[in-house]
This record gives sequence, structure tokens and C-alpha cells, in this order.
Amino acid sequence: MDIGVVGSGALGLYYGAMLQRSGQSIRFLLRRDLQAISDSGLLVHSVNGDFHLPKLAGFATPQEIGPVDLVLVGLKTFANQHLVDLVRPLVGKETAILTLQNGLGNEELLADAFGAKRILGGIAFLCSNRGEPGEVHHLGEGRIRLGEFSGGLSERSRQLADMFQMAGVPCETVDDLHKARWEKLVWNIPFNGLSALLNKDVTHLLSHPPTRQLVREIMHEVIAGANAQNLKEPIAGEEFSARMIHFTDQMDHYRPSMMIDRAEQRPLELEAIYAIPLQLAATAGISMPRIAMLYSLLALGEGDRK
Amino acid sequence: MDIGVVGSGALGLYYGAMLQRSGQSIRFLLRRDLQAISDSGLLVHSVNGDFHLPKLAGFATPQEIGPVDLVLVGLKTFANQHLVDLVRPLVGKETAILTLQNGLGNEELLADAFGAKRILGGIAFLCSNRGEPGEVHHLGEGRIRLGEFSGGLSERSRQLADMFQMAGVPCETVDDLHKARWEKLVWNIPFNGLSALLNKDVTHLLSHPPTRQLVREIMHEVIAGANAQNLKEPIAGEEFSARMIHFTDQMDHYRPSMMIDRAEQRPLELEAIYAIPLQLAATAGISMPRIAMLYSLLALGEGDRK
Repeated sequence: MDIGVVGSGALGLYYGAMLQRSGQSIRFLLRRDLQAISDSGLLVHSVNGDFHLPKLAGFATPQEIGPVDLVLVGLKTFANQHLVDLVRPLVGKETAILTLQNGLGNEELLADAFGAKRILGGIAFLCSNRGEPGEVHHLGEGRIRLGEFSGGLSERSRQLADMFQMAGVPCETVDDLHKARWEKLVWNIPFNGLSALLNKDVTHLLSHPPTRQLVREIMHEVIAGANAQNLKEPIAGEEFSARMIHFTDQMDHYRPSMMIDRAEQRPLELEAIYAIPLQLAATAGISMPRIAMLYSLLALGEGDRK
Repeated sequence: MDIGVVGSGALGLYYGAMLQRSGQSIRFLLRRDLQAISDSGLLVHSVNGDFHLPKLAGFATPQEIGPVDLVLVGLKTFANQHLVDLVRPLVGKETAILTLQNGLGNEELLADAFGAKRILGGIAFLCSNRGEPGEVHHLGEGRIRLGEFSGGLSERSRQLADMFQMAGVPCETVDDLHKARWEKLVWNIPFNGLSALLNKDVTHLLSHPPTRQLVREIMHEVIAGANAQNLKEPIAGEEFSARMIHFTDQMDHYRPSMMIDRAEQRPLELEAIYAIPLQLAATAGISMPRIAMLYSLLALGEGDRK
């Protein structure tokens, strides 16, 4: 399959590399890593074993990539104002678009530009970060849950899941992508924001009883917001939050992406992870006071970036 | 009047110096500043004009001070576990105790140890900080509102107010000290905590619309908690919060004491300003979710101090 990767940060590079290694044909839209990768390929440092891809098809503009069968979107959502322009040159008659970005609003943005039928979304449980140019670090996990933006289980989504599976990436299909996105937010909203705000990893956050309680309260606000969104089935509140916290207790001082973004003075993905969920909840009559507060506190700090 | 000052930080030194200059007899319990003040007295840098007191009666232990007519308490509340032991040697048969400390719980602590009748409380609107040993900086304001712990207007409280007035310290009596304390919390709870958490002065906090809105919401939580405390008259919600915000808009990049405490790695006054108000509100059936969250976020950071 001809695949174009837009947004070749840690996530785009890692999944693109895994797919290329399994025999797919990948074209990467590169910026920072273009020169290094053209010179010496891509080195993937992975918990599952390092590997090196000596040749990658890297391009500086989406026009050079041209139409593909599948666009894989890994762009950080704070750059979403460029998303449609970056994707458009890759879209041919039959092109599908799979966004693996964080939070809400990404499928909608793509659907408005290219039609809902082309769009799939995936939730990536990936712990990775960029290293030196030409290198990427896979620190753990990697699982993807993907589904149709328009809902339901399609043959296309099963084929994509198979493709990832064959590339060594655990992947399952979901028939309610919207629910899957909200389920991920149950984790992202408390842990991304609190870790960025306080500069504390998840183990620190959970080892302090008042913050552990706050994480739980924030999760329940997310679940209340989610369950007002006409999901096919509601998220089971206490059970789901307990499971998320237990799951996070197993992580050893994991630093969520937003904590790293702030530490490295990058913008935060506040729109996709906070503003849009808050707005959708408010439209459904659900107030999420702690999340609104967390969003305000994070937004204030954004003024400090150079 | 023979006055003993317990807790000779910026506040205790400033008010003690003003009273001594006006002719009162003051004995200071000193620690950090003892040597410097014994050598060369106290220098007050004040927006109203600097002055120097060449001789101050400074003591290293409360036993050396002995009984006085009035104990003036300026101790930071995070040292309240020492308060009763520090005050006891100063208490004679007729001694009154006036605490100018922040937040709630201070009068109660003193009343439990020395009897409610001795106790008065004052709310100090003072912008000051310590300089080098032997110096104190008065940056603005200084007004005191004081009243009887047991309520009502007493001859004693009027006399104390007159004494401060004659010393150049604007001072008024209040017949509902508890209400006056809660009114001060309407300011302290949002501005102290948010400034310490985000390392932003009040002007920064108010210039960012979402934080300005958060300040207002937190003020309304405090007012709801206050108005469940059997005050003689309720605090008028919208009007009072609007006045507090307007008042703060006039301050030019003011740094609340808690912001300075955190920047200088001192403990924060979390018990008096957050924990006790939260507990009193909860007992009255009032939930203050944003304040509870702010308290948790501040408390987590306390683990970082050396």
C-alpha cells in the first residue's frame, strides 16, 4: 500500500518505520529530520529491539509526495491550522485518511475538507520521543485502536488493522470511534494536564493522595461529559476510572507527552485535549469545573513560551 | 502599653516599629534579626518615608520577655505548632492577645490555650517584606481591621484601634471578626494560591481572561462557604467579588506573600488559608471544588522543598 505520513514526529516516524519494515511503501513528509534521514536513513531505538532503515523516501513538501492510498496523520494538533494544506496534495480519488492525533476535532477538520467517507481515526497508545535527527525512540506500548469516523465496522478498517498487526503493531478496530476517543481522554485530560502544570510524572501524581483523588474526580468529569455525547454504550464510570488508575500505577515514572512538551517549551495540545471536549460537554449541558480550571491554568502558562 | 511581638517577620517588625515610634513600649521576640538589631537597631524602608529606630528591645526567648499587656502575633501560620509555647511566657493576668496572622484557626488555637476572652484578631492589609537582617520594607497599604474573637464591639478593641491610628496605622474595629476573616479569604484564596502555583503576579493573573474568570469563580466559592458560617450579615456575592477584582486591578504587578514564599522555598500557609476553610465549608454542606483542587495542586508542590 502507498502510504504518506504527514507529521513525522516520534509517532509518525515510528509507525511509518514499522510499516515500511513490513513491506509497505511509505513516503514521509519531513522537516527537521530530512537531511539526516537522506544521509543515513532512520534508526529506531525500540524496547522490542533496535532496527535501522537505510533508505527512507523523505520529502520536503506534500506536493512532491502526491496522491497515495492512505494518508497517516501524526501532526501535533497545535499545528492543525496547516493540516488541510499539508494533506490535500496526497489525496487522490480513493485515498483514505487515518489520523492518529490526540484529542478531539481532528477527524472533523479533515472531514470538512475531504468528505467524511475518507476519514478514519486511531487512538495510539504509544510511548515514544524523538532523539537526534534521524533517530526515534520507542519506549513502550504502541497499540492502536482505529475505526471509521462515520461509525460502524468497515472492511477497510479491518484491512488497516491487519496491516498494522502484520507490521508488529497491536491493532484493533472499534465500531464507536467517538467513544474510543473519549475513553482515551479519560486518561489524557488528567494526566497530560496535571503533569505539565506541576512538572510531575504520573507516579508522583498518584503517590500523593490528594492528587490521586483529584485525578479520579477529573476522570469522572470526563466520563460525565462523554456519556452525554450519544455514545453507543456509556463508559462505566467507577469501573473505568479504577481501571485507568490501576493501569497507570504500573507505569514507572512515565512522563506524558504534554509534560515533555512544556518542559521543552513547545506549545501544548490544549485545543484538542481541553477546549473542544469542554465545548462539547457544555453543549450537552455538562459542566466540568475542574477540567475548565486545569485548562485555564495551562493556558496561562502558554504565554511564557518564546 | 507594654507590648510583646511574637513572630517578628516583616509584619511583626513593621507594626512593632510603628508602635514603638509612637511611644509604646515594645519587646520583640527575634531570631534571624537579633544580632543585627542589637548592633544597630532597625531600619524601616517605607513608602511613607524611611525611619530608623536605634534601640529595640530584642530577645531570643519568650521567657526573657515575660508578661505584657498585649501580645501581638505575627507568626507565619505554618509555624503554629510553636505558637502556644511562644506566647505563654508573655501572658499575665490581664494580658490580651491580638493575632494578625493570615487565614482561619489562629484565634481558636489561642483561645483553646488561653481562654477566648483574651483573644482578638486583626486582618492586616500590608504589603511588606524582610530585607537584610535589621531592615524591613514597607511597600504599601498597612490597614488593619480588628475585633474580638468572641464578637461584638468592645472598649478594648476601640482602644487598640486608637493606638494603631495614633501610630500612623489606619485601623478600624469590626463587630464580626469571623466575617472579616472570610472577606479577606475572598482575596487570599484565589490570589495567594494561583500566584504561588503559576508564579504569576496578580496583574498577570487578571490580564488573562480565563484566569480572571477562574479568580471570580473561586471568589464565589469562598463567598458561598462564608455565607454558610452564620455570619451576622452575608457577604454580597457579585458586588463583593467585583469590588475585590477592581481593587486588585489597581495593584501594579503585586506579588502575594504565598508567591514569594514559594519562590523562596519557604512552606506555604496552606492549613490556615485552604485546609481549615475547606473543612468549615464542608461541615456546613458547601462544596468548593475549585478551591479543593487548588489546595491539592499546591500541596503536591510542598513535597519539593528541602
